[in-house]
Amino acid sequence: MSSVTRTFVADLINRTGESVVLRGWVFRLRILAKTTFVVLKDCSGQAQCVSSTSALHDLKLKLDDALEVRGRVRADERAKTGIEVDIESATILNRAATLLPFNSSSDIEHVSAEIKTEYRPLALRNEAVAHVFRVQAAILKHFRDYLASQRFTEIVSSKIVGSGTEGGTNLFEIKYFDRVAYLAQSPQFYKEHGVAGLERVFETGHVYRAEPHATSRHLTEYYSLDLEMGFIDGPEDVIQLERQLLTYIFEKLNVQYVTALPSMLDVPMWTFEDCIERLKRSDLVDDLDPEAERELCRLAELEKGIPAVFVVGFPLSARPFYTHPRTETTAAGFDLLFRGLEITTGGQRLHRRADLERALTKRRISTEPFESHLKMFELGMPPHGGLAIGLERLTAQILGLQNVREATLYPRDRYRLIP
Amino acid sequence: MSSVTRTFVADLINRTGESVVLRGWVFRLRILAKTTFVVLKDCSGQAQCVSSTSALHDLKLKLDDALEVRGRVRADERAKTGIEVDIESATILNRAATLLPFNSSSDIEHVSAEIKTEYRPLALRNEAVAHVFRVQAAILKHFRDYLASQRFTEIVSSKIVGSGTEGGTNLFEIKYFDRVAYLAQSPQFYKEHGVAGLERVFETGHVYRAEPHATSRHLTEYYSLDLEMGFIDGPEDVIQLERQLLTYIFEKLNVQYVTALPSMLDVPMWTFEDCIERLKRSDLVDDLDPEAERELCRLAELEKGIPAVFVVGFPLSARPFYTHPRTETTAAGFDLLFRGLEITTGGQRLHRRADLERALTKRRISTEPFESHLKMFELGMPPHGGLAIGLERLTAQILGLQNVREATLYPRDRYRLIP
Repeated sequence: MSSVTRTFVADLINRTGESVVLRGWVFRLRILAKTTFVVLKDCSGQAQCVSSTSALHDLKLKLDDALEVRGRVRADERAKTGIEVDIESATILNRAATLLPFNSSSDIEHVSAEIKTEYRPLALRNEAVAHVFRVQAAILKHFRDYLASQRFTEIVSSKIVGSGTEGGTNLFEIKYFDRVAYLAQSPQFYKEHGVAGLERVFETGHVYRAEPHATSRHLTEYYSLDLEMGFIDGPEDVIQLERQLLTYIFEKLNVQYVTALPSMLDVPMWTFEDCIERLKRSDLVDDLDPEAERELCRLAELEKGIPAVFVVGFPLSARPFYTHPRTETTAAGFDLLFRGLEITTGGQRLHRRADLERALTKRRISTEPFESHLKMFELGMPPHGGLAIGLERLTAQILGLQNVREATLYPRDRYRLIP
Repeated sequence: MSSVTRTFVADLINRTGESVVLRGWVFRLRILAKTTFVVLKDCSGQAQCVSSTSALHDLKLKLDDALEVRGRVRADERAKTGIEVDIESATILNRAATLLPFNSSSDIEHVSAEIKTEYRPLALRNEAVAHVFRVQAAILKHFRDYLASQRFTEIVSSKIVGSGTEGGTNLFEIKYFDRVAYLAQSPQFYKEHGVAGLERVFETGHVYRAEPHATSRHLTEYYSLDLEMGFIDGPEDVIQLERQLLTYIFEKLNVQYVTALPSMLDVPMWTFEDCIERLKRSDLVDDLDPEAERELCRLAELEKGIPAVFVVGFPLSARPFYTHPRTETTAAGFDLLFRGLEITTGGQRLHRRADLERALTKRRISTEPFESHLKMFELGMPPHGGLAIGLERLTAQILGLQNVREATLYPRDRYRLIP
């Protein structure tokens, strides 16, 4: 390899007439009798490199080889990027295998989700797949940036916990030296503790659910965008923040990735009772089902022009014990449905120790394992609420993907542990 | 509670003469015969609020109660913030307990680390403790921003893995349905896979080490700032990137948090052999110890004016199997020591499947469990390298904390699972 400074493809436009060293992958390759065209791809873009076919013959170049090219940059109006590179010499840095299930420049539509996951690096070299994960990275950035601008502080909480937040179901067990511990289902308690200290906190991190079902919308490990805020009047404050947060993220994505995402500022808020009536579904007792989520988004689009709706006031008994009541029997919790799928759960939480104890007792959950948590409610815990957005679901709904696995680099479910 | 819009304390300076609603905690309280002074603290700052003592008498206000104040903003040159608030009415939103081990305005130096962790929310309400975690959040932000500016893409990889990256030691076991899985010790493999797809990737996330020792520098769960980059010439490229990355982060912190962190651009690179000679320590065979780390930083400060040094060329046998050699017996890996502590491990990795197989075999590790990983080296994997910075260690060294636990909201070690 060379000790000469390597140039990124995207910077070539400023280097016309100069000699450069490029490094990247053989993305496209056209070998004619006299001339060979190599489209070299690196993290910054693609450039067409040209050579006599005879000069490259011994290299036995093929698609997806890692290549170094030394060449001279030439302005060329026919090229999309305005330049071509005349190859002076080329060195293979590492060869791709001869038989690959697909190439990075393949039409990825014809490659199964299974193979795309198994050969994730190669899939990521494909523009369509890379787009999904670049958009996902952008969502993360804009989520954090918006909240920081609203006085939220990022926190990092432990994922190894002594007990669950929901009372012990669907937890993965860890052998923790001579004890048993669990993988956190949610940073719920920690972000509430964060509110008692910093008033407004967010966290982006993994959460774990030992759920045996493997549907297109469930994973055992997913990435949760969590926030929690103090001194609220009710769940409407959290809902309003999410309207603004998503609108901010969507506006940024529309500019960067030419998506056509709607403003979320006018997303309506409907009660669960109201939803049941609109759906004319007497079978839905305490939660919506996938069909109901799709239909409600359709109705919201008809009525408000946005395929999204906040649903509040689910039956209290169907929500976690720490949920603040809205009426005697309904919860101050909400779900956000977007383009037919629930992407957020949130709400106002109980903030008084006595109320939490009563809620646990009513559900016949022993208060004792929660003592270290309950103690935090004696420190001047303000009225508060928050929400959690599933990153994979949000990515999938933004991009119109059919399965959250397509928005997960390394999905985990009942059957999948590798790669 | 009120439906009137609540004002943040920091915005009061623009509201002189107006009636406002404030919400926050009683941070300081001075009750004189006629007048009571309440310093109210929220996530944006502190404001002094004033009332006649008799008007507040029935509230029985005390430190750390969560409080709503309605009052009128008055310019007051004696106040640090330039304003005071004349209380018109006040409502307690939630009471703090009567007996707390400390208050948010206490001199936190006299509170033990143990109690600060146990009462984390109250400690976070203290400015000295909040400073640590605000700086930590800023490190995260600037780490991500700098790398994004250098064409790195953020990735999210799985923390539940089928086997370890180092061959199976110090792994936490998870009961994964009817199988055994493990908590990832590092995103090492996944970030290398990321390089084969996106060329430059980073990840911020938890890693796990089932290490039974509980020292001031070890945790069983810590937060790792990982990056990996393709098409490098050698470990020097990764070292140079870290010099620039840390200098960027430190410059930002110096402005935001008035720290006095050095430029890292001239941090020297010394070989392990050279270090042994400088230290005159014949007992160090394949790694440094804490005393050596401190002494090397002292020597670097004397020589270069910066208490930091990159150490390269450790004996190859002491580094992980995927380490690229620098010479026949030494590794193209490095550690960064900063202010007496190792805060980074990095290096160039092997990028050819055959080399990885040889390295595994040489260490008598079976290649079979690594098959799904090795396969990724047949996809045109470029020469590459990267590094991992321990967030808690970096935070501790920046702020001069004696124990990484002081830079961890919820530390996990052999003995600690709660809170």
